[in-house]
Amino acid sequence: MTTHARHIETGDVLDEYVAKYTNWGKWGPDDQVGTANYISRAHVRDASRCVRTGQVVSLAMNLDETGPQTGANGRFNCLRYSVASGTDHASGAQSWAGKPLPRKMGYADDTVVLHLQSATHWDSLAHIFHDGRAYNGFPATGISCRGASRLGTEHLKDRLVGRAVLLDIPRAKGRDWLEDGYPITVEDLAATAEAESVQIRDGDIVLVRTGQMAKCRQQGWGTYAGGNAPGLSFYTIPWLAENEIAAVASDTWGVEVRPNELPDSFQPLHIPTIVYMGLLLGEMFDLEQFAAACADDGVYEAFISAPPLPFTGTAGAPPGPVAIR
Amino acid sequence: MTTHARHIETGDVLDEYVAKYTNWGKWGPDDQVGTANYISRAHVRDASRCVRTGQVVSLAMNLDETGPQTGANGRFNCLRYSVASGTDHASGAQSWAGKPLPRKMGYADDTVVLHLQSATHWDSLAHIFHDGRAYNGFPATGISCRGASRLGTEHLKDRLVGRAVLLDIPRAKGRDWLEDGYPITVEDLAATAEAESVQIRDGDIVLVRTGQMAKCRQQGWGTYAGGNAPGLSFYTIPWLAENEIAAVASDTWGVEVRPNELPDSFQPLHIPTIVYMGLLLGEMFDLEQFAAACADDGVYEAFISAPPLPFTGTAGAPPGPVAIR
Amino acid sequence: MTTHARHIETGDVLDEYVAKYTNWGKWGPDDQVGTANYISRAHVRDASRCVRTGQVVSLAMNLDETGPQTGANGRFNCLRYSVASGTDHASGAQSWAGKPLPRKMGYADDTVVLHLQSATHWDSLAHIFHDGRAYNGFPATGISCRGASRLGTEHLKDRLVGRAVLLDIPRAKGRDWLEDGYPITVEDLAATAEAESVQIRDGDIVLVRTGQMAKCRQQGWGTYAGGNAPGLSFYTIPWLAENEIAAVASDTWGVEVRPNELPDSFQPLHIPTIVYMGLLLGEMFDLEQFAAACADDGVYEAFISAPPLPFTGTAGAPPGPVAIR
Amino acid sequence: MTTHARHIETGDVLDEYVAKYTNWGKWGPDDQVGTANYISRAHVRDASRCVRTGQVVSLAMNLDETGPQTGANGRFNCLRYSVASGTDHASGAQSWAGKPLPRKMGYADDTVVLHLQSATHWDSLAHIFHDGRAYNGFPATGISCRGASRLGTEHLKDRLVGRAVLLDIPRAKGRDWLEDGYPITVEDLAATAEAESVQIRDGDIVLVRTGQMAKCRQQGWGTYAGGNAPGLSFYTIPWLAENEIAAVASDTWGVEVRPNELPDSFQPLHIPTIVYMGLLLGEMFDLEQFAAACADDGVYEAFISAPPLPFTGTAGAPPGPVAIR
Repeated sequence: MTTHARHIETGDVLDEYVAKYTNWGKWGPDDQVGTANYISRAHVRDASRCVRTGQVVSLAMNLDETGPQTGANGRFNCLRYSVASGTDHASGAQSWAGKPLPRKMGYADDTVVLHLQSATHWDSLAHIFHDGRAYNGFPATGISCRGASRLGTEHLKDRLVGRAVLLDIPRAKGRDWLEDGYPITVEDLAATAEAESVQIRDGDIVLVRTGQMAKCRQQGWGTYAGGNAPGLSFYTIPWLAENEIAAVASDTWGVEVRPNELPDSFQPLHIPTIVYMGLLLGEMFDLEQFAAACADDGVYEAFISAPPLPFTGTAGAPPGPVAIR
Repeated sequence: MTTHARHIETGDVLDEYVAKYTNWGKWGPDDQVGTANYISRAHVRDASRCVRTGQVVSLAMNLDETGPQTGANGRFNCLRYSVASGTDHASGAQSWAGKPLPRKMGYADDTVVLHLQSATHWDSLAHIFHDGRAYNGFPATGISCRGASRLGTEHLKDRLVGRAVLLDIPRAKGRDWLEDGYPITVEDLAATAEAESVQIRDGDIVLVRTGQMAKCRQQGWGTYAGGNAPGLSFYTIPWLAENEIAAVASDTWGVEVRPNELPDSFQPLHIPTIVYMGLLLGEMFDLEQFAAACADDGVYEAFISAPPLPFTGTAGAPPGPVAIR
Repeated sequence: MTTHARHIETGDVLDEYVAKYTNWGKWGPDDQVGTANYISRAHVRDASRCVRTGQVVSLAMNLDETGPQTGANGRFNCLRYSVASGTDHASGAQSWAGKPLPRKMGYADDTVVLHLQSATHWDSLAHIFHDGRAYNGFPATGISCRGASRLGTEHLKDRLVGRAVLLDIPRAKGRDWLEDGYPITVEDLAATAEAESVQIRDGDIVLVRTGQMAKCRQQGWGTYAGGNAPGLSFYTIPWLAENEIAAVASDTWGVEVRPNELPDSFQPLHIPTIVYMGLLLGEMFDLEQFAAACADDGVYEAFISAPPLPFTGTAGAPPGPVAIR
Repeated sequence: MTTHARHIETGDVLDEYVAKYTNWGKWGPDDQVGTANYISRAHVRDASRCVRTGQVVSLAMNLDETGPQTGANGRFNCLRYSVASGTDHASGAQSWAGKPLPRKMGYADDTVVLHLQSATHWDSLAHIFHDGRAYNGFPATGISCRGASRLGTEHLKDRLVGRAVLLDIPRAKGRDWLEDGYPITVEDLAATAEAESVQIRDGDIVLVRTGQMAKCRQQGWGTYAGGNAPGLSFYTIPWLAENEIAAVASDTWGVEVRPNELPDSFQPLHIPTIVYMGLLLGEMFDLEQFAAACADDGVYEAFISAPPLPFTGTAGAPPGPVAIR
């Protein structure tokens, strides 16, 4: 009997991981950034030495109506509105503060309506609750219609800058992408790192490529947003914890494999990681261009700058993430 | 008679600068990023060597209702709504896809309504028009209610990473902040750089601190959004152009001094810079913590990562900017 | 050769109707409400005598995520957000103006993001343009990103109250609904009125039931929003004009039959009616309950109150329409 | 000692009114519309006879940025965005479904962001809670981030049509408006009805004019939204209950006098009325034109149609209210 099967039978692996890997109190009773604490100044300084050529690669999906969301669960693709436009200018229909603009000047302005989890984003530590509690034991009731009084995304605005390692799982397996439902194992992670000649260090931001986004670029989004997907096995939690990684991001909707592995569960990896470890999870990162660059020169590490936009009191937000090689 | 006065009398300095400093066509007829082209890979690589201690400092205002906007001209402070909350979870009122969440799990999600120019942001090259044209000669009519078909912010998602130099003008003058209406001159810029023992190089992102944000933190926003302000003199345009800087950002609403210096004008510096030079302007950057760090150790340069979020077809967008020292 | 075929061959029926039925100037050069002018005070007073039993029937679709929109062309179903909630109250997480609410009080508040054409609505006379002009000859450029300086929905806030006549076309034909693509003809309108023993009078608000909404309630929305549909034939325009009706509303997305009848056209009936006649068109009215009541007692007229909400400067808006029988 | 003073001393008038006037269960355990039940079909039929001349008067504020909100407590004036515009049409920048519009056609569409309590609106019975409960005893936890599972505004879409009586308090007193802080008493209500020769009947929608909106139109909104105001005294609750009125609407932000009369309270009249009686309260109704018409001919009753827009699951919503005289 495998380890996995035994866990599922006893049904307590969730509780086991919670108990074993919780970081509540580790960085003090008021800590609001969790594993981002693993990124020390020395780590950042060393990480900057990963810049070899000066190539900058974005890891962000564009924010527009072509995204994967369907509106289900209140998540829709970004809406954009013109507050002022070039056609208004060209038509002589523009003014500022009630007066025509002088000197043949014109301008455009936009307002967006954005679900913060709709495209590339980090979950903040206010995103998931378990039994009435958020990370570090803060009561879930602190996250109300007024937003998160603690653990909001704004606390991450100078975090998530450091060393990124790309683990391109399908490439290491000689495939274009992993199939939906494929659980990435600890063995997969280790074998991929070895194939890439890269080492995981504490404080790293690990980027796990499944290839699902590449597949959807070819075949359409389909059920990308919440349907079946390749992703991290629940049983990678010990690896994530013991390596003291700062964050893990992937090119899927929810980082973890779907259908989920534990019986009677929904995104169960989110519970030990976000609520107890305070691990930062990044979702829908566009790793395609970065993966191509890494494959090209065989270097799978980079300096990464990916702090989320500081929307106060939110359960997550998009960064403008870049890998600098 | 001073140079400034003469220009104002003849009234043609705007036209003069337009003619002299235009970059239309310089980077090809399809170029959409302007002076961001000055940032070469070699520049980025060298800039990464500015990382000495690994300190990461955010340059972003938080995005929330405490911002400076008043609603005038359609610009308001960021609105945030809970799509799901911790109180819903604690009240047993949550579900996902119509079913209760299993395993005592709960979650929070948010939607924001955000005017993209409302807080810390870059203007894209679709932001300003002159006589029916945008940067590189693209017709203003290409920026409609459907957004910017060209020059949108998405083109900048892997740009604006490089070397930042802080010019802390009031500190060089021994003051806390510049007074509203004070025009920062080329002499001020040069004297500050000299006082800071820092050199401006081509491709740099120049951060000009006026101290106005610090003043408003003490005294309230008042008319920060669109009222009088210290800022770059219109007559710094030759300096900006000749130094081949990639971008200039400041801690004010509009970078340039207000009241504006040219007769019958509104934000006239925006015309030669954005429309003709394709210069990236950053507004409402929070430079306070960075300035304090620079003053502390006397190092006024840093590695900066500040690509705007790629809201497709927009006239500008907020970055999650960090200076890494 | 039929009349229709001839028109199509010569291709000028659109121009013909425009020329023949235009009301530009009829109610003065500043008129902004078009055929709503046909509703006189005497008409309203007489219409109120249609109230026989006091039954009030809503003609409105609910505004929520279950609507027919798909997001195409920027039209989506209404989004709703809680600014305050009962779960916040129950969790002790509420405050007002920064202080806890006294006396065990709590409250809920909502914000909506609403495309004004997304469900039951009237098109205002700012909704459609032809060759640079809107109704009454006003330049289309008067409708900019700042909204409609003329012809906005606010001008209708005390209009569209009067006599409603339901023409239940499928019922008169002994069917549940008309098939998609079926063009309702003048003969259909006349035969239905006769079958219902009802007369059309000037100033009437004519409600044309196709049954498509009933069909979609059974079969799903499908392509209700913009796909094929039963609806008024383009050739009913003379009937609409000569009867001097004030408004016509239907239970379809766009009132007129789809596919459209004229070659190289998109919703061509909208041009002579809205732009030239100033005819008020109502779309996605829910006529099911009203039709059932009319069928029940054989009375197909009612007093109707259906002014749109006065969203200033808009191209249309939802009313809270009621038929009072 | 007056009755009022005694109540305040013992501090239990709130509890007393709650106990005495509760309608929980009166219209069944599932009732969701409260005192709207007082409006019978016979009432509506009789009310229609109030139509004498056919004059239609709107009672709605326009929905735009000129409203009274300041952004405090998440309430802001309606935001409007163009999804398509006349300037786009005039500039040749429009398309539909990706293709140019044929036959020189153009169109405009709008999206609004609307706080439902920001201008003229009815509070639904999901708006106020007391000690964990809403009207009819429904748990407050039924009103979550997903909206109100019960008592939402959609239940009122065929209600609030009937007889309106205007009680123009300042006019009866020979004044333009009541001063802020003036509590309208039962005696004021009775004296005004007598002066107007009008009788209150069960099922009526009572419109109480204070003149505050007229004052603000002259002097600016100031603190109209939530500041001091004239309004109903808390001690009018017995009058509201015993007259079995269906609804009461006023021209102020919150119907009741501010500062509030009960110690340690915030809008205390809202508790017995909304939570226990299920009384519909209408706020920010624009009564100016209607009051002028009533004064003109001395008739203070009218037929009113004022169902709110059926935003599903909301705590209130604007109607397109009209008085028909």
